[in-house]
Amino acid sequence: MRSLPSLVIEPLVRAALLEDLGRAGDVTTDSIFDADDVSTVQLVVRDPGVVAGVDCALLAWRLVDPSITVSVAKPDGSRVVPGDVIATITGHTRGLLTGERVALNFLGHLSGVATGTARIADAIAHTSAHVADTRKTIPGLRALQKHAVRCGGGQNHRFGLDDAVLIKDNHIAAAGSVSEAVRRVRENIGHLVKVEVEVDNLEQLRELVTLPVDAVLLDNMGPDLLRQAVAIVDGRLITEASGRITPEAAVPIAEAGVDLISVGWLTHSAKVLDIGLDFVS
Amino acid sequence: MRSLPSLVIEPLVRAALLEDLGRAGDVTTDSIFDADDVSTVQLVVRDPGVVAGVDCALLAWRLVDPSITVSVAKPDGSRVVPGDVIATITGHTRGLLTGERVALNFLGHLSGVATGTARIADAIAHTSAHVADTRKTIPGLRALQKHAVRCGGGQNHRFGLDDAVLIKDNHIAAAGSVSEAVRRVRENIGHLVKVEVEVDNLEQLRELVTLPVDAVLLDNMGPDLLRQAVAIVDGRLITEASGRITPEAAVPIAEAGVDLISVGWLTHSAKVLDIGLDFVS
Amino acid sequence: MRSLPSLVIEPLVRAALLEDLGRAGDVTTDSIFDADDVSTVQLVVRDPGVVAGVDCALLAWRLVDPSITVSVAKPDGSRVVPGDVIATITGHTRGLLTGERVALNFLGHLSGVATGTARIADAIAHTSAHVADTRKTIPGLRALQKHAVRCGGGQNHRFGLDDAVLIKDNHIAAAGSVSEAVRRVRENIGHLVKVEVEVDNLEQLRELVTLPVDAVLLDNMGPDLLRQAVAIVDGRLITEASGRITPEAAVPIAEAGVDLISVGWLTHSAKVLDIGLDFVS
Amino acid sequence: MRSLPSLVIEPLVRAALLEDLGRAGDVTTDSIFDADDVSTVQLVVRDPGVVAGVDCALLAWRLVDPSITVSVAKPDGSRVVPGDVIATITGHTRGLLTGERVALNFLGHLSGVATGTARIADAIAHTSAHVADTRKTIPGLRALQKHAVRCGGGQNHRFGLDDAVLIKDNHIAAAGSVSEAVRRVRENIGHLVKVEVEVDNLEQLRELVTLPVDAVLLDNMGPDLLRQAVAIVDGRLITEASGRITPEAAVPIAEAGVDLISVGWLTHSAKVLDIGLDFVS
Amino acid sequence: MRSLPSLVIEPLVRAALLEDLGRAGDVTTDSIFDADDVSTVQLVVRDPGVVAGVDCALLAWRLVDPSITVSVAKPDGSRVVPGDVIATITGHTRGLLTGERVALNFLGHLSGVATGTARIADAIAHTSAHVADTRKTIPGLRALQKHAVRCGGGQNHRFGLDDAVLIKDNHIAAAGSVSEAVRRVRENIGHLVKVEVEVDNLEQLRELVTLPVDAVLLDNMGPDLLRQAVAIVDGRLITEASGRITPEAAVPIAEAGVDLISVGWLTHSAKVLDIGLDFVS
Amino acid sequence: MRSLPSLVIEPLVRAALLEDLGRAGDVTTDSIFDADDVSTVQLVVRDPGVVAGVDCALLAWRLVDPSITVSVAKPDGSRVVPGDVIATITGHTRGLLTGERVALNFLGHLSGVATGTARIADAIAHTSAHVADTRKTIPGLRALQKHAVRCGGGQNHRFGLDDAVLIKDNHIAAAGSVSEAVRRVRENIGHLVKVEVEVDNLEQLRELVTLPVDAVLLDNMGPDLLRQAVAIVDGRLITEASGRITPEAAVPIAEAGVDLISVGWLTHSAKVLDIGLDFVS
Repeated sequence: MRSLPSLVIEPLVRAALLEDLGRAGDVTTDSIFDADDVSTVQLVVRDPGVVAGVDCALLAWRLVDPSITVSVAKPDGSRVVPGDVIATITGHTRGLLTGERVALNFLGHLSGVATGTARIADAIAHTSAHVADTRKTIPGLRALQKHAVRCGGGQNHRFGLDDAVLIKDNHIAAAGSVSEAVRRVRENIGHLVKVEVEVDNLEQLRELVTLPVDAVLLDNMGPDLLRQAVAIVDGRLITEASGRITPEAAVPIAEAGVDLISVGWLTHSAKVLDIGLDFVS
Repeated sequence: MRSLPSLVIEPLVRAALLEDLGRAGDVTTDSIFDADDVSTVQLVVRDPGVVAGVDCALLAWRLVDPSITVSVAKPDGSRVVPGDVIATITGHTRGLLTGERVALNFLGHLSGVATGTARIADAIAHTSAHVADTRKTIPGLRALQKHAVRCGGGQNHRFGLDDAVLIKDNHIAAAGSVSEAVRRVRENIGHLVKVEVEVDNLEQLRELVTLPVDAVLLDNMGPDLLRQAVAIVDGRLITEASGRITPEAAVPIAEAGVDLISVGWLTHSAKVLDIGLDFVS
Repeated sequence: MRSLPSLVIEPLVRAALLEDLGRAGDVTTDSIFDADDVSTVQLVVRDPGVVAGVDCALLAWRLVDPSITVSVAKPDGSRVVPGDVIATITGHTRGLLTGERVALNFLGHLSGVATGTARIADAIAHTSAHVADTRKTIPGLRALQKHAVRCGGGQNHRFGLDDAVLIKDNHIAAAGSVSEAVRRVRENIGHLVKVEVEVDNLEQLRELVTLPVDAVLLDNMGPDLLRQAVAIVDGRLITEASGRITPEAAVPIAEAGVDLISVGWLTHSAKVLDIGLDFVS
Repeated sequence: MRSLPSLVIEPLVRAALLEDLGRAGDVTTDSIFDADDVSTVQLVVRDPGVVAGVDCALLAWRLVDPSITVSVAKPDGSRVVPGDVIATITGHTRGLLTGERVALNFLGHLSGVATGTARIADAIAHTSAHVADTRKTIPGLRALQKHAVRCGGGQNHRFGLDDAVLIKDNHIAAAGSVSEAVRRVRENIGHLVKVEVEVDNLEQLRELVTLPVDAVLLDNMGPDLLRQAVAIVDGRLITEASGRITPEAAVPIAEAGVDLISVGWLTHSAKVLDIGLDFVS
Repeated sequence: MRSLPSLVIEPLVRAALLEDLGRAGDVTTDSIFDADDVSTVQLVVRDPGVVAGVDCALLAWRLVDPSITVSVAKPDGSRVVPGDVIATITGHTRGLLTGERVALNFLGHLSGVATGTARIADAIAHTSAHVADTRKTIPGLRALQKHAVRCGGGQNHRFGLDDAVLIKDNHIAAAGSVSEAVRRVRENIGHLVKVEVEVDNLEQLRELVTLPVDAVLLDNMGPDLLRQAVAIVDGRLITEASGRITPEAAVPIAEAGVDLISVGWLTHSAKVLDIGLDFVS
Repeated sequence: MRSLPSLVIEPLVRAALLEDLGRAGDVTTDSIFDADDVSTVQLVVRDPGVVAGVDCALLAWRLVDPSITVSVAKPDGSRVVPGDVIATITGHTRGLLTGERVALNFLGHLSGVATGTARIADAIAHTSAHVADTRKTIPGLRALQKHAVRCGGGQNHRFGLDDAVLIKDNHIAAAGSVSEAVRRVRENIGHLVKVEVEVDNLEQLRELVTLPVDAVLLDNMGPDLLRQAVAIVDGRLITEASGRITPEAAVPIAEAGVDLISVGWLTHSAKVLDIGLDFVS
């Protein structure tokens, strides 16, 4: 299982902590607990789902108290049920309480993304399609959310505007034709950059399959149209269906034979997974 | 209407743009459009809701192309219906396309928070209760999400661990009693910091109303218990109900007479508001 | 005793070190000492006062040499006399010398703030008044200076423009009346934000005590007028006296019965506390 | 007159603003004033002194409201008396009030440093000595404070550990002798780095004048001893007197014939210069 | 022609300026020139080559003096000869001199990269091969150097470890075989990530051409071996030759029929292009 | 031997790692290796030269994997031949591969600078001249490159515009004469700032030697003219020759008797030193 480099997540966790600590830190906790008090806590699952973001949660506590010790039972990607203990952490009580909300905010949100992804991945498991994310992410959290999508069994679409080409209707209109758009792009990219083109109808698709591109984004097509599109492509391109696809709508689309279903909902409307913190001692 | 200082939102918008631009920018758009091409676009609402985040969206474009001109028809806090134009922006086509996704990600997410807030605020408008947010926010976006809650007619709970005191069960247990916890806190805070205490039962509440605190958080109580709690408090404290309150559950709780209902769902599980970008010319 | 989170102070200490290290570090020390040389040093008090900033000083050395060992005899808040040893530090000689000036600059300045605060706190200890700080702080050091004020026995006023409301003459003039100003503010704030209003005369004060506010700032009033103001308030509001109060002027003001005396001098004109570094071995 | 590059001061002013704005900005002002309200304000001097930091103050307002217009009557370095108007600023009322405290904090502190410097510079104007600053500065503000010292007629000592060599007693002890310390340093520095050596007695000084160094720091010597030292040096080195020199003690020291008197008090214990903001319209 | 987003280059230019300005700015220029002095300067080519980095140079001056006016005659990608004027800039003399060195350092280095690239691109123009860069770049400047390579007519290899897969000998050894390595990678990447595999001999290559990969890196093979490799691949993969290829060695390799020749020398050993600044008035 | 403070190099190494890691880290390595795999690697020299940048390389790995253990055989400044092992590092295989390119990019580039410097230093070792660097450095790497120059036996010229004065032709023209330029500068600088003046001919030089300056930069003079210049100066100033000096041209210039030869080529056109990473186990 790939994990995110801590160099990438640390600035995000640090910023989230500073957002919560403000200018004076945890006034309540620091007024009541002694600096030497020590406790053990557990991250406990309250709803079924898939875990993501354990590293972020633990890093939040470690940045507040570098002396914590940790034992992880359910790492990222684990399927969990209510009552499952994700991790046990021992450290200074002040730090455990101070870092709690930030740790849970990361873990709950990212596990929510993973859980939503798994829900669709499970529903289409009998097909050859995979669920994929989009660039419709929460600002600042794209790398984390895309990691969570992987934890839930989904695939990552491009990470930004620079790591793959996606030619859309505006681009085609400006270039005058799909082939001219592809030509202009090809002139400007390296050999390791893939090209995907969005089409709205089968006519555009028939032109596209003759061009040097890697994938086609079939936008807002129903299962019937998608089936025809898949037949036209005939394995020459990777096929991706998109367009406001809800978890319910995913199954017939997957059954139409496309390779990928990309779903903005995974990241832009994720529901938190309820995970709590219990004091053991 | 209060707005957020641009000094506060700029680092967030800049980070979101860099996340999307990566190391090479919008490869597709820069390959196809000339640097001089100019367009006009409109932010168009596709679902009914409340707008929040217009400043973020416009700043995203302005950071990419400082020469844009803008006209805003539906500023933050506006109720909108499908087809409403939020704003019209004219600028270089490259910049408009490059900034599009980041602008929409801010606007869609924050309008989603505002819309969810308004849904509850509307449902309890016949009561004296207000809906409030929590610290269960998306890491990095707390100030923006809390602004969106205000746009939707909600109130802000504390912004972090430092700007108000919230004494919870762990604190009380460590101090030995509610009054000792309050005493320790009072010794450590300034005269402009409010103190709220979480209670689980009416006995604790009866002790609390005699102490120098400002508000009580009534955790996980049903409408009946809340009604009794409100009677006990009798106006001496601000009363806040909390505990996994869904939009549906809010109404009877509000009718129980509490001052505030705090709802993590507003910020940790917000559904995007669908807003699109149409090219006018 | 509350302490500041190291996440909050580290960026300040790091910036101060970089300011001193410049582009090439401690040219003198690195040319003369071997990288392996080890020494023990002591922070020794040269003037009587109250200590604040020990964590900053130690962090300065730790950021230069993570291997130092430390023993603290006089933590923040300690009363000290000349000759007292605040802390003993053992580490690489290069690092001890390189970090010396930054460590002493933090410790001397913050202890100076604490000492000045204690001077006033001691002078008014026979009254019920407390000394409080203001927002008249050294740019960049507000959180540290406010911590030092607490170390000296003072109380913190609001930390910024966002964590409490302070309605001043310009605001009242623009709103048309105190009550309209309070009304507008109340509509825009959450339930955990306190409201203080500045008044210049007793007439304004009589209007104010009927309004839903928490505190009154009595600006530039002498002891007699303050006594009358305290009588009018009669415990309904927290009373704060302010206005260019020197340490000398504080006593009669405190004896007038106000709850707080806020003094910009604590932070904007603090005199350093003389603390030196002695090499023990 | 040299001024500081805005690239250098902007991060400091921005940080100071964010420190004051916190997470929600100026809650009071934004609740009461309309976004379109416009005002004109004046920076008015309340105590006699020397101005420094006008650029910082204006930048604070400009970062909050880029549309302000400004007219400066008393730029950095000006001698001012009570009632003098330093600058007049017109802009949005919200921005003027929001930036007020940060602007005044920079201007008051830096003008305080300049004024304190001028007090000593004036007192020793009849001698050939100049007053100089030290590295005993407020953390984070060294470049600004050293600029203020120049505004007050003082000279700058080295800015950090890297731009000049200062050999002190510990260095000499470790090297075994002054000449060995100088030799080791000379081997490690470029041709544009000056070398100063601290001596405690005249014997050390007699050895020093034969070595390839640029300046001598005569530490904690009274006027008589300094006079002898100056005679020994006989123009071969720049002579600097230092050691807890108060403004009062500076005159006889200057009259002893040294080139420079360095005074930590200028920067570590500066008293604010009282400057206020008056609303003109 | 693609250009780099100013959001990406600004932090680099700002850092370079701060590196040169240090803590006090251009002491020499500020002491001699008045703040109002104005000049016009020209960037003049002294050696033949290809221009890259004009935006960086101009941004350096603009960050120092936002009021400059600029006219560009030779934008990035232009072939130039000695005497050619790249751009003419008018602004405050202080700013022009202060920004000069940083502007020239960017422009000279990046034009050097572009010129070196063009030298190889020209030499192999009669073949179907393209010259490509590597990740052997100067730390911190990768995006800029890769832009310069494009300006010189080269192609970009992957930008980092995350935007394409490159399976090397260590990976293959750890996986046990090329096919197992490819399988493991395929399981972990999205549909828009390309896969390239490094092979050292023709046997490995024969296995590789049957696998689902996009490109092959033929490491350290001479022209004869490369010719055989190209025949084996037979258009099924993109072929890239690499391995300490000097400009001289590039031609026979290109003539062997590979698609790409990747050359670390372009970026890790670039020779500056001599460009000077002439004062016109 | 002086070394660079890790506080100074860490931001550069961190930025270089983030540049390479992008948004998802080392996709290839993380897909193939287990998180627990451990390896030992060696930095092996492939070309003769002088080492610089070992601290940067090791820090790159340490930031990726804090658990690495390291043994250094050839620290900065060491002369090395092909086959020499600079350092041996043991750690997690993932981290060793992930940090490899960044580590090598720092080490190769800085060792290249040191090697180029040593080449000139060796060539002029029979003279009294030293080779010095300039401000013609790679943007962002000045402190590191100047450290590498010291490793190669060179001397550092000024680090920026603020730590020494260099009066050039534009400055002299604006001031009206060399003496007026020197006068203006002297009025604005502290006693530890040296002044160097650039002259183009011997007439200017004769005026200069009577002024209170420290060094003269003899620009674009051949060996004969330099010899005359050295005679005129007669030890009263430090003499520096400059002006597009190639390694070949350095010897006769050094033999002309100047103290320093400054060479932009050291830093703006450094050739990488080939150093590889070998897996030992």
